[in-house]
Amino acid sequence: MFFEGSEKKVQIRVTPQAGSLRELGIEFWRALVAQSQASILSQVQSAELDAFILSESSLFVWDDRFVMITCGNISLVDSIGFFLQRFDRELLAEVSFQRKNEYQSHLQKTTFEQDQQQLSQWLPGRAHQLGHLDGHHNFIWYWHAGHQPKALDINTELLMYHISGEAADYLRSQGQSIAGVRRALALEDLFAGFIIDDFLFEPYGYSVNGVKGCQYFTIHITPQEDSSYVSFETNIDLALNHPTLLDQLCQILNPSSFDLITFNCSPSLTASDDTVLVAHQSASLQAVYPVDFKHFMCPLGT
Amino acid sequence: MFFEGSEKKVQIRVTPQAGSLRELGIEFWRALVAQSQASILSQVQSAELDAFILSESSLFVWDDRFVMITCGNISLVDSIGFFLQRFDRELLAEVSFQRKNEYQSHLQKTTFEQDQQQLSQWLPGRAHQLGHLDGHHNFIWYWHAGHQPKALDINTELLMYHISGEAADYLRSQGQSIAGVRRALALEDLFAGFIIDDFLFEPYGYSVNGVKGCQYFTIHITPQEDSSYVSFETNIDLALNHPTLLDQLCQILNPSSFDLITFNCSPSLTASDDTVLVAHQSASLQAVYPVDFKHFMCPLGT
Repeated sequence: MFFEGSEKKVQIRVTPQAGSLRELGIEFWRALVAQSQASILSQVQSAELDAFILSESSLFVWDDRFVMITCGNISLVDSIGFFLQRFDRELLAEVSFQRKNEYQSHLQKTTFEQDQQQLSQWLPGRAHQLGHLDGHHNFIWYWHAGHQPKALDINTELLMYHISGEAADYLRSQGQSIAGVRRALALEDLFAGFIIDDFLFEPYGYSVNGVKGCQYFTIHITPQEDSSYVSFETNIDLALNHPTLLDQLCQILNPSSFDLITFNCSPSLTASDDTVLVAHQSASLQAVYPVDFKHFMCPLGT
Repeated sequence: MFFEGSEKKVQIRVTPQAGSLRELGIEFWRALVAQSQASILSQVQSAELDAFILSESSLFVWDDRFVMITCGNISLVDSIGFFLQRFDRELLAEVSFQRKNEYQSHLQKTTFEQDQQQLSQWLPGRAHQLGHLDGHHNFIWYWHAGHQPKALDINTELLMYHISGEAADYLRSQGQSIAGVRRALALEDLFAGFIIDDFLFEPYGYSVNGVKGCQYFTIHITPQEDSSYVSFETNIDLALNHPTLLDQLCQILNPSSFDLITFNCSPSLTASDDTVLVAHQSASLQAVYPVDFKHFMCPLGT
């Protein structure tokens, strides 16, 4: 029962002249999400941020930007096209589109090359590849209109493959509950003060969004044996506010392989003795936005 | 300038009632190869074996079996279909079909699932996956008609990714020569006594076949930076006759990632201190034919 957990992600930031994206209202976002054949399942909000759980991953909307993340074989570029029909180029500050490492890229509706060609018909962005094609790798297409990332324009992604142990067993078990998953992930300890919204899929799979002020985190779990995948993503300044979080997530989920992708920040991850770094690549997207990609693995005994 | 070096491979063994495959003659093999849109470039032979360099990899023909290996996006299953039209099921002893780890599987004409469906319409074989989909992996489809592999039905594949160093630099250089490649690979030292046939492609790429009695070896080189790949494959009993060969090839080509796949044998490979084993899986194909898959990587400093 294969499911492609790994995600595509878009972040679009608009200029002040564009007005507030939050004020576009739910019908606009429903229509945008529907362009990708996904739908909104539930919603929470803070004073600065609306967070939506989607049928495939999540959507976050601030006044000046949105982040949409989709898993499965959703063609996220269609939602980007919908947004760009409404917002002319002079209202855009930056657009980034990312495809994370896929288990079975040939099952996707489009290749990254096709996505890139479509995006480049709309905006003169540039594609970057981080990591080798025969190992974990990420594709990022990025465009900006002279935008300079600020100190708080940060993002951390921890992508965990082949999870095992107690939490993984629970996530694959029959009869699991929302409360049980929250406990297995120690969610309320790790994210105290966040407003939490989560969804348990049938027969497996779990998504959670958390918001606090302008901060968000999201976790998506595809627990299936042989193709398990858990993504954690946040704009929390982890180095400042939660230096042990990434280590704690790795301890709970015990992945045998994981990627750390950071945009404009350097959170701490203490690779344990049984972990090695097998790929590392940095880039400066359009010469302004630093991104760093690391792939870790746990070797077997020889 | 991407080229998919990694190969598909078929081995078909016939019963004594099928007669000698070598006596089918060159026109039969030309036609079989042409079914996959490949062609024969050159040929050598020993008393027991004909070896052909193809436009995409190699073909070896013994009296009782043949091995065809293709790279690029050749659909090798079409050649298998051609053979099975000529040889009825009661003349077949075993058929194995393998797809090695691909850099860009979505550029292939067919998926392994499609190949498997086609093969299973002809014969009731079974598919095996060795290794995880997000790391190096191999697919093997295998069928036999009560055939029991003999002690000498062995095969060793060493698949090297991301080569570097002096030999790799030469293989990527302008103005290389056959003699220069042979020297870079120390071919005449490593394979003394073998009749050698080789071909240098434009602008890059090199294939060599060697035969000696019923033994063969073949090396195929796709040196392109970022997607380099070198495959070595042989039925030599390495443990008995050449215990240091795999280590020597790794020293010469210095891959940062390599797979060792062995069928019915356990040749020695002394993983150096800077190499770790990241995947290992064994299987018994249709309960008779042992195969072992190992993926090694050279970690980076942290």
